[in-house]
Amino acid sequence: METWSFLDTFESNFRPLVVIELAKGTKKETIEWFTERIVDKKANGGAQLLIKPLVTENGDGNIYLVGASHLRLLLGAETVGLVKECTDNSMRSFTYSSRKTFKDFADDNHNFLTMSECQYIIKHELENLRAKDEKMIPGYPQAKLYPGKSIVRRLLTNGILVQIFPLHDREELKKLRHTWYGQVKIGYQPLDEIRSYFGETIALYFGFLEYFTFALIPMAVIGIPYYVFAWEDYDKYVMFATFNLLWSTVILEVWKRICAVMTYHWGTLLMKRQFEEPRPGFHGVLGINPVTGREEPVYSSIKRQLRIYLVSVPFVCLCLYFSLYVMMIYFDLEQWAMDYHEENKSNFSSLMLFVPSIIYAVVIEFMNRIYRYAAEFLTSWENHRLESSYQNHLILKVLVFNFLNCFASLFYIAFVLFDMKLLRQSLATLLITSQILNQFAESLLPYWLQKRHVKKMKKHMHSLKTDTDLSLVEQINLEKEMGIYLGTFDDYLELFLQFGYVSLFSCVYPLAAVFAVLNNVTEIYSDALKMCRVYKRPFAEPTANIGVWQLAFETMSVISVVTNCILIGMSPQVNALFPDSKMDLVLTVAFVEHLLLAIKFVMAFVIPDKPRDIQIKLAKLEFESLEALKQQQMKLAAESLKE
Amino acid sequence: METWSFLDTFESNFRPLVVIELAKGTKKETIEWFTERIVDKKANGGAQLLIKPLVTENGDGNIYLVGASHLRLLLGAETVGLVKECTDNSMRSFTYSSRKTFKDFADDNHNFLTMSECQYIIKHELENLRAKDEKMIPGYPQAKLYPGKSIVRRLLTNGILVQIFPLHDREELKKLRHTWYGQVKIGYQPLDEIRSYFGETIALYFGFLEYFTFALIPMAVIGIPYYVFAWEDYDKYVMFATFNLLWSTVILEVWKRICAVMTYHWGTLLMKRQFEEPRPGFHGVLGINPVTGREEPVYSSIKRQLRIYLVSVPFVCLCLYFSLYVMMIYFDLEQWAMDYHEENKSNFSSLMLFVPSIIYAVVIEFMNRIYRYAAEFLTSWENHRLESSYQNHLILKVLVFNFLNCFASLFYIAFVLFDMKLLRQSLATLLITSQILNQFAESLLPYWLQKRHVKKMKKHMHSLKTDTDLSLVEQINLEKEMGIYLGTFDDYLELFLQFGYVSLFSCVYPLAAVFAVLNNVTEIYSDALKMCRVYKRPFAEPTANIGVWQLAFETMSVISVVTNCILIGMSPQVNALFPDSKMDLVLTVAFVEHLLLAIKFVMAFVIPDKPRDIQIKLAKLEFESLEALKQQQMKLAAESLKE
Repeated sequence: METWSFLDTFESNFRPLVVIELAKGTKKETIEWFTERIVDKKANGGAQLLIKPLVTENGDGNIYLVGASHLRLLLGAETVGLVKECTDNSMRSFTYSSRKTFKDFADDNHNFLTMSECQYIIKHELENLRAKDEKMIPGYPQAKLYPGKSIVRRLLTNGILVQIFPLHDREELKKLRHTWYGQVKIGYQPLDEIRSYFGETIALYFGFLEYFTFALIPMAVIGIPYYVFAWEDYDKYVMFATFNLLWSTVILEVWKRICAVMTYHWGTLLMKRQFEEPRPGFHGVLGINPVTGREEPVYSSIKRQLRIYLVSVPFVCLCLYFSLYVMMIYFDLEQWAMDYHEENKSNFSSLMLFVPSIIYAVVIEFMNRIYRYAAEFLTSWENHRLESSYQNHLILKVLVFNFLNCFASLFYIAFVLFDMKLLRQSLATLLITSQILNQFAESLLPYWLQKRHVKKMKKHMHSLKTDTDLSLVEQINLEKEMGIYLGTFDDYLELFLQFGYVSLFSCVYPLAAVFAVLNNVTEIYSDALKMCRVYKRPFAEPTANIGVWQLAFETMSVISVVTNCILIGMSPQVNALFPDSKMDLVLTVAFVEHLLLAIKFVMAFVIPDKPRDIQIKLAKLEFESLEALKQQQMKLAAESLKE
Repeated sequence: METWSFLDTFESNFRPLVVIELAKGTKKETIEWFTERIVDKKANGGAQLLIKPLVTENGDGNIYLVGASHLRLLLGAETVGLVKECTDNSMRSFTYSSRKTFKDFADDNHNFLTMSECQYIIKHELENLRAKDEKMIPGYPQAKLYPGKSIVRRLLTNGILVQIFPLHDREELKKLRHTWYGQVKIGYQPLDEIRSYFGETIALYFGFLEYFTFALIPMAVIGIPYYVFAWEDYDKYVMFATFNLLWSTVILEVWKRICAVMTYHWGTLLMKRQFEEPRPGFHGVLGINPVTGREEPVYSSIKRQLRIYLVSVPFVCLCLYFSLYVMMIYFDLEQWAMDYHEENKSNFSSLMLFVPSIIYAVVIEFMNRIYRYAAEFLTSWENHRLESSYQNHLILKVLVFNFLNCFASLFYIAFVLFDMKLLRQSLATLLITSQILNQFAESLLPYWLQKRHVKKMKKHMHSLKTDTDLSLVEQINLEKEMGIYLGTFDDYLELFLQFGYVSLFSCVYPLAAVFAVLNNVTEIYSDALKMCRVYKRPFAEPTANIGVWQLAFETMSVISVVTNCILIGMSPQVNALFPDSKMDLVLTVAFVEHLLLAIKFVMAFVIPDKPRDIQIKLAKLEFESLEALKQQQMKLAAESLKE
């Protein structure tokens, strides 16, 4: 087997970490140039990694394995700013020169960096492989380059590079699967293992999912007797709603603290933000970036604003209007079903009463998914320079539409039709239908498809070995055909909508929390299955918090204060307390609402975002770096004053 | 004249910057030890400054002048982290080694650092003069020291050191006075000059005062016709209130941007936070600080919490209750005055109608001031470790009380008595009386006292020279008796309450903004007078924003949305629009209120806190430091891989 890694980084025990698939029929000169750049020395502008072609039976030769020497990975860990635990239990940025002070570090311990960290480092190094004086990719004159352009990104946008993905570690994965969902037991997820296998973003999602499920349990437990005994006295009712509102504030605040503890121990809380490069899809005319002073594509911010306000905003409004229109059709259907039930009372007709809600729930899910594609297309067309800004605009678009699409009918039923019975029924149908649809569309369907595909593949390869016995070639051939995990967006969105169903109308349907808990327990398993079995292994993404979702959940909990207060105010029990004056009722409700909102804000302000011990550790670290700086200055000062 | 500065830092052109006054009769050994420590080399743990005794006619010998060599000041500028403009117009942290790249730097340019910067550096160096192995202050066995304890702070708490203050620069001050308030002209204040003479905190206050005054002008201009023509139609009314609410949001958001621009050019936006030392008044048993690992007094956080919740909170509640009690007495008086007016209608009796409000306004001011002392005492007794935490607790205590004390009667009149005429009258009386009282108590009275004192002093010294001709001895004797400027707290508080009067009930009394503008114009002059003539020169305090006051003003503007919506809902014009159903009225008002609050939050979210060019400059700086780090790592990596 030929290898290009003969320059000065040759290592006999080559461990493949990342797979590069080039397009079939890629020109030889291109391959040579690209692999040469990958193995070339750092000093010459290369990535100084190891690369090997994968020799398959039919010998396509378009798949390459990338690895790196242990030393190279350690230096890369410093470049990406990994934070690791020291022997004194504090967390510090890893540097090669201070490597001896880190826990578990030994020159021959190749497990100091987890496999996902190594893969993250390699991805970072590959993406930072930049054009020097090449004007184009050799062999492809239409694929222009300019100094500083990321080569891998250009290869990807030109279709020469089909995909880059990290390899699964069959042994590790099997262990992880076993502790995660292999045993029938109630307990915490192995978050630290998930983190070292899939990275922080995904581990944090599972952490949030688990936390959120536990946090819903008190609501569910309190909700059951309300449903069973139909406790609808005024005081019990208000108590339940007030508990829910304060509880939802508390859980969101406490999550920040738990999140800080987790990410501190993972090291991402301390990781410095890297300078953000333009996102892959960004295009524009070559110009000078005012921040870096480098030549790169620039795109006028005014043009982008025009696209946003003249095209995207009207389009979103149109979609919102369409969603409301569909909602009105649903109400017509609902009316028709009720009339039908009135005319011919039968078991069939009473079943028919649920049909419009179910159809509507399916339509909503369908519209949400269609809209998602439209939103992605539009946001990509808006041509944002940074991935973070792209994500924020996408999330905002999707959230607004999904919120209206899912909850508009409930708002309409509650505050226009004043039909609490229908509200309860709709809420239950929407919640349960969407949960079933989601679990099916998200995990079970892809799992089934994937399983069929694997069987076909194996039959094709005339081998029926178990997973762990697969040869590297077979494993790569399997994995490269697997679907791509598109990030945690859809998972968080699902939780967000669920939180809406639970909190917005909690006092009408106390069982919502129970269903949410049940759903989330199975969700953990189906999401775990999805990650381990259905998709390609994703690259790890270091992250310190759940970002914009924290804000989204907090906004939802503010809106739920308003809706719950109105619902309580509308309930016959509360109305009976103010027999003479509806005015007093409304004023009381408004007063209580403002009071609750004020309490919410004070609570959010008073509860510190980080636990005290984490605060102290962070302060200690800051103090040390200030001290080091001061020592340095002192030395300089002493020298200068001596002169 | 003898000087201790002969060690190795002797400089012939000694320029006195800071004055140290020791207690009369301080022991000689103490003085010798202290001055020795001040002039001792950095390497030996000294401050390496220059010090000279001030020889007066009566020869007390308890006053010392501190200065520093130019080189020492430049090195000090690096230690405190001053940020200066470079020749390429970017702002960078000053370092001695890169001194040549800074604008206006020349080895013989002694104006590169402003005088207030030099004084700030000296203060910092003096406060950082720490005990080595001394167990006590020589000559004072009761004044214990431990390694790392700030010597100056111990001397201050033991009364050996009476005061440290920066010297005025008579020439500069005269120039500043002339451009600031010496000429009768309408125009901006010389904020940059104020900043270089008094430091950033004070300049930022004057900047805010000026900005706030300009921002109030549109409200005032729109308010006048409403008052003159009594425009009380529904639509004009609502328009005015809505304009006020949105305007108040906009001005607070825009202030953040203007503040960022100012502090960027002053360099404080980029200044790194220094590690906070325990505040002077903090005491406790010696222990180990978990952050620094140093020996220092520690005080249990639980004890502090107990003091706060068991003593301070009940005390504040009691004060609030007392304030409400006084309010009820005011209403009795008001009733009595009205009855009196009814019985004997005369000019005198109609004047009498205003008397209760005026008395109440005076009592409010009086109570506010008394409470202030109590709050300071209590917060100091709570024994906060950090000055910032002390300040936050103090501000919170004072704000809550002042808010209730000033506005409770207005809320009572508006929402319990529903008496709009009385509300308007009370508001006007309270606003105007408090403004007059404030200006008198804050500036004019101290100015008059100070002037009398100066006259007496000059007579005593048998000289009647003008200010600039005073000898150094005379100047110091004058300045050391001047009052101490206690910071911008009271000034901001005054503006905060004024903002409350203007915004909380803006739709009832549109003239409030006019009075506020008039008051602020004179306030600028009287505050300027106060700074230049009445008080000792304060030490400069670098700051990047107005801190907790931004939050206070924003909270006030949220509360004002609520009050204004209710007031509009209560107005007869709006009531006439809903003749049939009060219910619809209340619901409409509640809906509009929520809409306005939502718009406010969206606006606050959408308007970026920093202008685009400042954002780019900050990003550029961050990018450069990341690049530098990367270069360094790259070099290291190349070396390591070569081995």
